[in-house]
Amino acid sequence: MRPLDRTEALRLLGTVSLGRVVFTQQALPAVRPVNHVVDGEDVVVRLHDGSALAGLLAPADADGVVVAYEADEIDPVTHLGWSVVVTGFARRVTDAREAARLAGRLRSWVAPDPVQVVRIRPDLVSGFRLERGAGSS
Amino acid sequence: MRPLDRTEALRLLGTVSLGRVVFTQQALPAVRPVNHVVDGEDVVVRLHDGSALAGLLAPADADGVVVAYEADEIDPVTHLGWSVVVTGFARRVTDAREAARLAGRLRSWVAPDPVQVVRIRPDLVSGFRLERGAGSS
Repeated sequence: MRPLDRTEALRLLGTVSLGRVVFTQQALPAVRPVNHVVDGEDVVVRLHDGSALAGLLAPADADGVVVAYEADEIDPVTHLGWSVVVTGFARRVTDAREAARLAGRLRSWVAPDPVQVVRIRPDLVSGFRLERGAGSS
Repeated sequence: MRPLDRTEALRLLGTVSLGRVVFTQQALPAVRPVNHVVDGEDVVVRLHDGSALAGLLAPADADGVVVAYEADEIDPVTHLGWSVVVTGFARRVTDAREAARLAGRLRSWVAPDPVQVVRIRPDLVSGFRLERGAGSS
Protein backbone atom coordinates (compact mmCIF):
# COMPACT_ATOMS: atom_id res chain seq x y z
CA MET A 1 0.00 0.00 0.00
CA ARG A 2 1.70 3.16 -1.25
CA PRO A 3 0.54 6.58 -0.06
CA LEU A 4 -0.26 9.12 -2.73
CA ASP A 5 0.87 12.71 -2.66
CA ARG A 6 -1.62 15.52 -3.10
CA THR A 7 -0.91 16.10 -6.78
CA GLU A 8 -1.20 12.45 -7.73
CA ALA A 9 -4.30 11.99 -5.58
CA LEU A 10 -6.14 14.90 -7.21
CA ARG A 11 -5.04 13.74 -10.65
CA LEU A 12 -6.52 10.29 -10.02
CA LEU A 13 -9.73 11.83 -8.69
CA GLY A 14 -10.08 13.62 -11.99
CA THR A 15 -9.91 10.36 -13.94
CA VAL A 16 -13.24 9.10 -12.57
CA SER A 17 -16.68 10.67 -12.34
CA LEU A 18 -18.25 8.80 -9.44
CA GLY A 19 -17.48 9.26 -5.76
CA ARG A 20 -19.15 9.50 -2.38
CA VAL A 21 -19.74 12.65 -0.40
CA VAL A 22 -19.54 12.10 3.35
CA PHE A 23 -20.99 14.47 5.92
CA THR A 24 -22.60 14.68 9.32
CA GLN A 25 -26.36 14.84 9.53
CA GLN A 26 -27.96 15.31 12.91
CA ALA A 27 -24.77 14.02 14.52
CA LEU A 28 -24.81 10.86 12.40
CA PRO A 29 -22.37 9.97 9.65
CA ALA A 30 -24.01 10.14 6.24
CA VAL A 31 -22.80 9.21 2.78
CA ARG A 32 -24.17 9.46 -0.73
CA PRO A 33 -22.78 8.57 -4.15
CA VAL A 34 -22.59 11.49 -6.56
CA ASN A 35 -20.83 12.55 -9.74
CA HIS A 36 -17.95 14.93 -9.58
CA VAL A 37 -15.51 16.90 -11.66
CA VAL A 38 -12.21 18.32 -10.53
CA ASP A 39 -11.99 22.06 -11.22
CA GLY A 40 -8.52 23.33 -10.46
CA GLU A 41 -7.92 21.74 -7.08
CA ASP A 42 -11.58 21.77 -6.11
CA VAL A 43 -14.00 18.89 -6.29
CA VAL A 44 -17.35 19.99 -7.69
CA VAL A 45 -20.55 17.99 -7.29
CA ARG A 46 -24.20 18.62 -7.97
CA LEU A 47 -26.85 17.90 -5.40
CA HIS A 48 -30.59 17.76 -5.79
CA ASP A 49 -32.33 20.44 -3.81
CA GLY A 50 -34.17 17.82 -1.80
CA SER A 51 -31.03 16.05 -0.63
CA ALA A 52 -29.87 16.18 2.95
CA LEU A 53 -26.56 17.86 2.21
CA ALA A 54 -28.22 20.41 -0.05
CA GLY A 55 -30.45 21.29 2.88
CA LEU A 56 -27.41 21.95 5.05
CA LEU A 57 -25.92 24.22 2.41
CA ALA A 58 -29.10 25.98 1.34
CA PRO A 59 -29.24 29.00 3.66
CA ALA A 60 -27.83 32.09 1.97
CA ASP A 61 -25.65 32.77 4.98
CA ALA A 62 -24.35 29.20 5.19
CA ASP A 63 -20.67 29.16 5.90
CA GLY A 64 -20.39 25.77 4.32
CA VAL A 65 -19.97 22.43 6.00
CA VAL A 66 -16.98 20.17 6.31
CA VAL A 67 -17.32 17.09 4.16
CA ALA A 68 -15.12 14.26 3.03
CA TYR A 69 -15.19 13.07 -0.55
CA GLU A 70 -14.00 9.63 -1.52
CA ALA A 71 -13.43 7.99 -4.86
CA ASP A 72 -11.68 4.78 -5.65
CA GLU A 73 -10.94 2.33 -8.39
CA ILE A 74 -10.22 -0.98 -6.75
CA ASP A 75 -10.47 -4.29 -8.54
CA PRO A 76 -12.76 -6.54 -6.49
CA VAL A 77 -10.78 -9.64 -7.44
CA THR A 78 -7.14 -8.56 -7.41
CA HIS A 79 -7.68 -5.73 -4.90
CA LEU A 80 -5.31 -3.59 -6.91
CA GLY A 81 -6.15 0.03 -7.44
CA TRP A 82 -6.36 3.29 -5.57
CA SER A 83 -8.51 5.32 -3.21
CA VAL A 84 -8.47 9.06 -2.59
CA VAL A 85 -10.15 11.04 0.18
CA VAL A 86 -10.33 14.81 0.32
CA THR A 87 -11.65 16.68 3.32
CA GLY A 88 -12.65 20.31 3.30
CA PHE A 89 -15.41 22.89 3.27
CA ALA A 90 -18.28 22.40 0.88
CA ARG A 91 -20.03 25.55 -0.26
CA ARG A 92 -22.74 26.33 -2.80
CA VAL A 93 -21.66 27.97 -5.99
CA THR A 94 -23.90 31.04 -5.87
CA ASP A 95 -22.67 32.81 -8.99
CA ALA A 96 -25.22 31.78 -11.63
CA ARG A 97 -22.79 31.82 -14.52
CA GLU A 98 -20.17 29.79 -12.70
CA ALA A 99 -22.83 27.34 -11.52
CA ALA A 100 -24.08 26.88 -15.09
CA ARG A 101 -20.55 26.32 -16.39
CA LEU A 102 -19.84 23.67 -13.77
CA ALA A 103 -23.25 22.03 -14.04
CA GLY A 104 -22.61 21.56 -17.72
CA ARG A 105 -19.57 19.45 -16.89
CA LEU A 106 -21.56 17.29 -14.47
CA ARG A 107 -23.99 14.69 -15.68
CA SER A 108 -27.33 14.35 -14.02
CA TRP A 109 -28.42 10.91 -12.88
CA VAL A 110 -32.11 11.57 -12.89
CA ALA A 111 -34.61 13.79 -14.60
CA PRO A 112 -33.63 17.45 -14.56
CA ASP A 113 -34.81 19.25 -11.46
CA PRO A 114 -33.42 22.07 -9.38
CA VAL A 115 -29.88 21.38 -8.31
CA GLN A 116 -27.18 23.00 -6.29
CA VAL A 117 -23.67 23.07 -7.58
CA VAL A 118 -21.29 22.60 -4.68
CA ARG A 119 -17.57 23.22 -4.53
CA ILE A 120 -15.42 21.30 -2.08
CA ARG A 121 -12.10 22.96 -1.36
CA PRO A 122 -9.64 20.24 -0.37
CA ASP A 123 -7.95 21.01 2.89
CA LEU A 124 -6.67 17.52 3.56
CA VAL A 125 -5.91 15.17 0.69
CA SER A 126 -4.93 11.57 1.27
CA GLY A 127 -4.88 8.44 -0.76
CA PHE A 128 -3.18 5.17 -1.37
CA ARG A 129 -2.46 2.84 -4.19
CA LEU A 130 -2.57 -0.93 -3.79
CA GLU A 131 0.09 -2.43 -5.99
CA ARG A 132 1.01 -5.96 -6.90
CA GLY A 133 3.91 -7.23 -4.89
CA ALA A 134 3.12 -4.98 -1.94
CA GLY A 135 1.90 -7.99 -0.01
CA SER A 136 -1.58 -7.89 -1.46
CA SER A 137 -3.32 -11.22 -1.20
CA MET B 1 -34.58 6.32 -8.99
CA ARG B 2 -36.40 3.59 -7.11
CA PRO B 3 -35.96 3.23 -3.35
CA LEU B 4 -34.94 -0.20 -2.08
CA ASP B 5 -36.52 -1.92 0.88
CA ARG B 6 -34.37 -3.28 3.69
CA THR B 7 -34.37 -6.88 2.47
CA GLU B 8 -33.40 -6.00 -1.08
CA ALA B 9 -30.80 -3.49 0.09
CA LEU B 10 -29.05 -6.02 2.35
CA ARG B 11 -29.24 -8.66 -0.38
CA LEU B 12 -27.49 -6.33 -2.84
CA LEU B 13 -24.87 -5.45 -0.24
CA GLY B 14 -24.08 -9.16 -0.01
CA THR B 15 -23.43 -9.39 -3.74
CA VAL B 16 -20.32 -7.18 -3.57
CA SER B 17 -17.23 -7.26 -1.39
CA LEU B 18 -16.06 -3.64 -1.43
CA GLY B 19 -17.63 -0.71 0.38
CA ARG B 20 -16.75 2.36 2.38
CA VAL B 21 -17.01 2.76 6.10
CA VAL B 22 -17.91 6.29 7.17
CA PHE B 23 -17.35 7.64 10.66
CA THR B 24 -16.54 10.74 12.62
CA GLN B 25 -12.96 11.35 13.66
CA GLN B 26 -12.19 14.33 15.83
CA ALA B 27 -15.46 15.92 14.72
CA LEU B 28 -14.53 15.51 11.05
CA PRO B 29 -16.21 13.18 8.57
CA ALA B 30 -13.91 10.30 7.63
CA VAL B 31 -14.25 7.53 5.07
CA ARG B 32 -12.24 4.50 4.08
CA PRO B 33 -12.74 1.70 1.57
CA VAL B 34 -12.80 -1.79 3.07
CA ASN B 35 -13.96 -5.28 2.27
CA HIS B 36 -17.13 -6.61 3.83
CA VAL B 37 -19.30 -9.65 4.16
CA VAL B 38 -22.92 -9.72 5.20
CA ASP B 39 -23.46 -12.07 8.15
CA GLY B 40 -27.16 -12.44 8.87
CA GLU B 41 -28.25 -8.81 8.78
CA ASP B 42 -24.90 -7.50 9.98
CA VAL B 43 -22.14 -6.02 7.89
CA VAL B 44 -18.75 -7.34 8.95
CA VAL B 45 -15.48 -5.65 8.05
CA ARG B 46 -11.87 -6.06 9.06
CA LEU B 47 -9.75 -3.13 10.09
CA HIS B 48 -6.04 -2.92 10.56
CA ASP B 49 -5.10 -2.20 14.13
CA GLY B 50 -3.40 1.01 13.07
CA SER B 51 -6.45 2.46 11.36
CA ALA B 52 -8.34 5.41 12.76
CA LEU B 53 -11.62 3.57 13.23
CA ALA B 54 -9.88 0.61 14.86
CA GLY B 55 -8.44 3.06 17.35
CA LEU B 56 -11.91 4.30 18.23
CA LEU B 57 -13.12 0.74 18.81
CA ALA B 58 -10.04 -0.61 20.54
CA PRO B 59 -10.77 0.10 24.23
CA ALA B 60 -12.18 -2.99 25.92
CA ASP B 61 -15.01 -0.93 27.35
CA ALA B 62 -15.85 0.73 24.02
CA ASP B 63 -19.59 0.87 23.52
CA GLY B 64 -19.07 0.99 19.81
CA VAL B 65 -19.41 3.94 17.51
CA VAL B 66 -22.07 4.87 15.01
CA VAL B 67 -20.89 4.44 11.46
CA ALA B 68 -22.41 4.44 8.02
CA TYR B 69 -21.44 1.85 5.45
CA GLU B 70 -21.95 2.40 1.77
CA ALA B 71 -21.58 0.13 -1.22
CA ASP B 72 -22.71 0.67 -4.75
CA GLU B 73 -22.54 -0.70 -8.23
CA ILE B 74 -23.13 2.19 -10.59
CA ASP B 75 -22.09 2.14 -14.21
CA PRO B 76 -20.01 5.26 -14.84
CA VAL B 77 -21.32 5.60 -18.38
CA THR B 78 -25.00 4.66 -18.18
CA HIS B 79 -25.38 5.66 -14.52
CA LEU B 80 -27.54 2.59 -13.98
CA GLY B 81 -27.06 0.57 -10.83
CA TRP B 82 -27.68 0.76 -7.13
CA SER B 83 -26.35 2.18 -3.89
CA VAL B 84 -27.01 1.01 -0.35
CA VAL B 85 -26.21 2.77 2.93
CA VAL B 86 -26.58 1.18 6.35
CA THR B 87 -26.15 3.14 9.55
CA GLY B 88 -25.65 1.58 12.94
CA PHE B 89 -23.32 0.74 15.78
CA ALA B 90 -19.96 -0.77 14.93
CA ARG B 91 -18.44 -2.99 17.59
CA ARG B 92 -15.38 -5.22 17.75
CA VAL B 93 -15.98 -8.92 17.60
CA THR B 94 -14.22 -9.92 20.83
CA ASP B 95 -14.98 -13.65 20.79
CA ALA B 96 -11.83 -15.17 19.30
CA ARG B 97 -13.59 -18.06 17.58
CA GLU B 98 -16.23 -15.86 16.00
CA ALA B 99 -13.58 -13.35 14.95
CA ALA B 100 -11.56 -16.11 13.28
CA ARG B 101 -14.63 -17.47 11.48
CA LEU B 102 -15.53 -14.04 10.13
CA ALA B 103 -11.95 -13.08 9.29
CA GLY B 104 -11.76 -16.23 7.17
CA ARG B 105 -14.59 -14.89 5.02
CA LEU B 106 -12.89 -11.51 4.58
CA ARG B 107 -9.97 -11.07 2.28
CA SER B 108 -7.02 -9.03 3.36
CA TRP B 109 -5.76 -6.32 1.04
CA VAL B 110 -2.28 -6.13 2.37
CA ALA B 111 0.24 -8.35 4.11
CA PRO B 112 -1.21 -10.09 7.16
CA ASP B 113 -0.93 -8.05 10.31
CA PRO B 114 -3.06 -7.68 13.39
CA VAL B 115 -6.65 -6.89 12.53
CA GLN B 116 -9.89 -6.20 14.26
CA VAL B 117 -13.05 -7.83 13.03
CA VAL B 118 -15.89 -5.36 13.37
CA ARG B 119 -19.60 -6.00 13.19
CA ILE B 120 -21.97 -3.23 12.09
CA ARG B 121 -25.55 -3.80 13.17
CA PRO B 122 -27.80 -2.00 10.67
CA ASP B 123 -30.22 0.30 12.39
CA LEU B 124 -31.14 2.34 9.33
CA VAL B 125 -30.97 0.77 5.88
CA SER B 126 -31.57 2.81 2.76
CA GLY B 127 -30.79 2.44 -0.87
CA PHE B 128 -31.88 3.17 -4.36
CA ARG B 129 -31.68 1.67 -7.77
CA LEU B 130 -31.16 3.76 -10.89
CA GLU B 131 -33.08 2.19 -13.72
CA ARG B 132 -33.32 2.92 -17.39
CA GLY B 133 -36.41 4.90 -18.28
CA ALA B 134 -36.53 6.58 -14.89
CA GLY B 135 -35.41 9.81 -16.47
CA SER B 136 -31.74 9.01 -16.25
CA SER B 137 -29.66 10.96 -18.69
